[in-house]
Amino acid sequence: MQGSPLPWTRSVSPAPAAPGAPLAAVDTPALLLDLDAFDANLAAVHALVAAHGVRLRAHGKAHKCSEIGRRQVAAGSVGLCCQKVGAAEVFARAGIDDLLVSNVIVGESKARRLAALARDARIGVCVDSSLQVAQLGSAAREAGATLELLIEIDAGMPRCGVGEPDEAVALAREIAAHRPWLLLRGLQAYQGRAQHLRTPAQREAAIAQAAARVARFRAALQAAGHACAEVTGGGTGSYPLELATGAWTEVQPGSYVLMDADYAANEPQPGAPVLRQALEVLCTVITVRPSHAVLDAGLKAFATDSGLPVSCEAGWTVRGLSDEHTVLVPGPDASPLQVGAKLRLIPGHCDPTVNLHDWIVAHRAGRVQAVWPVDARGAMS
Amino acid sequence: MQGSPLPWTRSVSPAPAAPGAPLAAVDTPALLLDLDAFDANLAAVHALVAAHGVRLRAHGKAHKCSEIGRRQVAAGSVGLCCQKVGAAEVFARAGIDDLLVSNVIVGESKARRLAALARDARIGVCVDSSLQVAQLGSAAREAGATLELLIEIDAGMPRCGVGEPDEAVALAREIAAHRPWLLLRGLQAYQGRAQHLRTPAQREAAIAQAAARVARFRAALQAAGHACAEVTGGGTGSYPLELATGAWTEVQPGSYVLMDADYAANEPQPGAPVLRQALEVLCTVITVRPSHAVLDAGLKAFATDSGLPVSCEAGWTVRGLSDEHTVLVPGPDASPLQVGAKLRLIPGHCDPTVNLHDWIVAHRAGRVQAVWPVDARGAMS
Repeated sequence: MQGSPLPWTRSVSPAPAAPGAPLAAVDTPALLLDLDAFDANLAAVHALVAAHGVRLRAHGKAHKCSEIGRRQVAAGSVGLCCQKVGAAEVFARAGIDDLLVSNVIVGESKARRLAALARDARIGVCVDSSLQVAQLGSAAREAGATLELLIEIDAGMPRCGVGEPDEAVALAREIAAHRPWLLLRGLQAYQGRAQHLRTPAQREAAIAQAAARVARFRAALQAAGHACAEVTGGGTGSYPLELATGAWTEVQPGSYVLMDADYAANEPQPGAPVLRQALEVLCTVITVRPSHAVLDAGLKAFATDSGLPVSCEAGWTVRGLSDEHTVLVPGPDASPLQVGAKLRLIPGHCDPTVNLHDWIVAHRAGRVQAVWPVDARGAMS
Repeated sequence: MQGSPLPWTRSVSPAPAAPGAPLAAVDTPALLLDLDAFDANLAAVHALVAAHGVRLRAHGKAHKCSEIGRRQVAAGSVGLCCQKVGAAEVFARAGIDDLLVSNVIVGESKARRLAALARDARIGVCVDSSLQVAQLGSAAREAGATLELLIEIDAGMPRCGVGEPDEAVALAREIAAHRPWLLLRGLQAYQGRAQHLRTPAQREAAIAQAAARVARFRAALQAAGHACAEVTGGGTGSYPLELATGAWTEVQPGSYVLMDADYAANEPQPGAPVLRQALEVLCTVITVRPSHAVLDAGLKAFATDSGLPVSCEAGWTVRGLSDEHTVLVPGPDASPLQVGAKLRLIPGHCDPTVNLHDWIVAHRAGRVQAVWPVDARGAMS
């Protein structure tokens, strides 16, 4: 980037509620977080991971909210994962001092921003190409800070990551040449597709295959004299399986504290805690017609990549969304809706839905407990 | 809402570029606006509308950017449309003093916010139920300001809007009871589905039907003694047809200054200007594998409700998006890509894509001319 970045501060939309307000008084659309469900999910997942002697590093890409991140760390998460340098900057400013950018990062300016963070925090980042190693090595040396690198491997989902163990060994050698500014922490192995396979058997097969790949890559690194202290990966849909294999030293669930309709469609994993739906969007009925009702929230309040949101109002089904509206249609047993009524909907996919909102309204027993800024929203670079 | 809203100011992500930088130096992901295409689209559409003696009120929901709105007003737009009270607040603060919330607004706090704006600006808003008329009437009286109401009618797309002329007449009577705090400006008649019908014949049939409905509602209002000075509606996909019918006094195109892959899939309307693609997302190649390449932008940088983004890189096709990544696959004639290369993609749907970004990088002749905040992004209530 040429020149210095323009600093820019602005007002965001006003908070949709004040603490103490009843839920019915929350302005809409608003992202609701049920604190009882949130706390229960947090406790259940952290306990299962701890029981396996594996570290949990909660993924901040799901919530992009420092306050949630602080609660995860207080409940035993070793730090946070994020996918973007900008999110790491936000979380570091919020006092979270052990951050893993669980993504490959390319570009000199991004490398410099990461290295600057590493002066005051422990920063990990993934690599799968020589260009990144060179950029991160230069930036870390200039900053006088150390970055800890994880070689991302293709764990069975063709996206980022090296495909063969010899590529990982070559990268490890390049990383070693940048000592002490770059250190190899180990492997990033994330089988994202496994998260959304519907049956336990499908997920088990995918994670068994990923574990076999992890073992091959790890053995190759060790045979070439490179330490591989950490293997990190896994998500809400599969983490009990990563734990069971013994191949991962750290798991990265993120959606577990929120949940969504897509995760709810997974058949549960035997022996794993059943997670509760904590995240909803509160909407107002703005139009009622004999054939349908319309809500005041559409594609700018709900991500629909993994399916439509699901109505919590008995008898009413989501027919479709446009930019600013959701249309509901009544079934035979639907009670009439009134203009002005407030309804809750479960998002199809939590991560990109949260990313549309500036605020999370945390509630318990029918009242607003707190309103948290989604402070890493929009930190996309 | 109980209590006063929490004011909240925060830093957003740093701007991805500084004015004067070459496009290759823009940090990614970044929303690019080609100013030559933007200016050409602005001139062509405004000229066609002016030639019909119809007012143009550009729709701000497409861009959520005051700077673009000011340019539209400077080029003859009578003001702006928006869909949310929060967006009207942002545009009013930016000095745009004739705003139409082209949407039905429900809720006492929203009504009060609109009435407060009406003290300093001309504010129109749509209604389709008695509750809204009552809420808006109370709020306007309390504020000592006048709100101008448009009765929204179902123009052939079952969403908001009254279904029958007698409902419109009943609402007009209720509005008249709130004089001088509420004034009836006319009808809002938007056939949103027509925008995306692929052939001119399909769109002509839909708009002809909408025009017939407008005529019925207008006649009923006038027969009952209510003025109907304005009929407003239409969008980028259909505005030449609304102009041709003579039934609309004002048209509301929004996407015309940006454009997207979905609009590009429409067969052009004979006699109407062919609009240029002005909006793109600049991405960086972060991983290259024999089978595919991965970009640093996913569902948090592109809305996919109307289809995947389209690659501008010859021979490379978008296979899919996940939260933070886009996977491209090469065709037989694809040139190899390098890690670190920057590519441009055309979003499937412009409105919700812009809504994901904090900045618009306006460029001309390969250089950044300005970086504009998407200042109404997130103003969802």
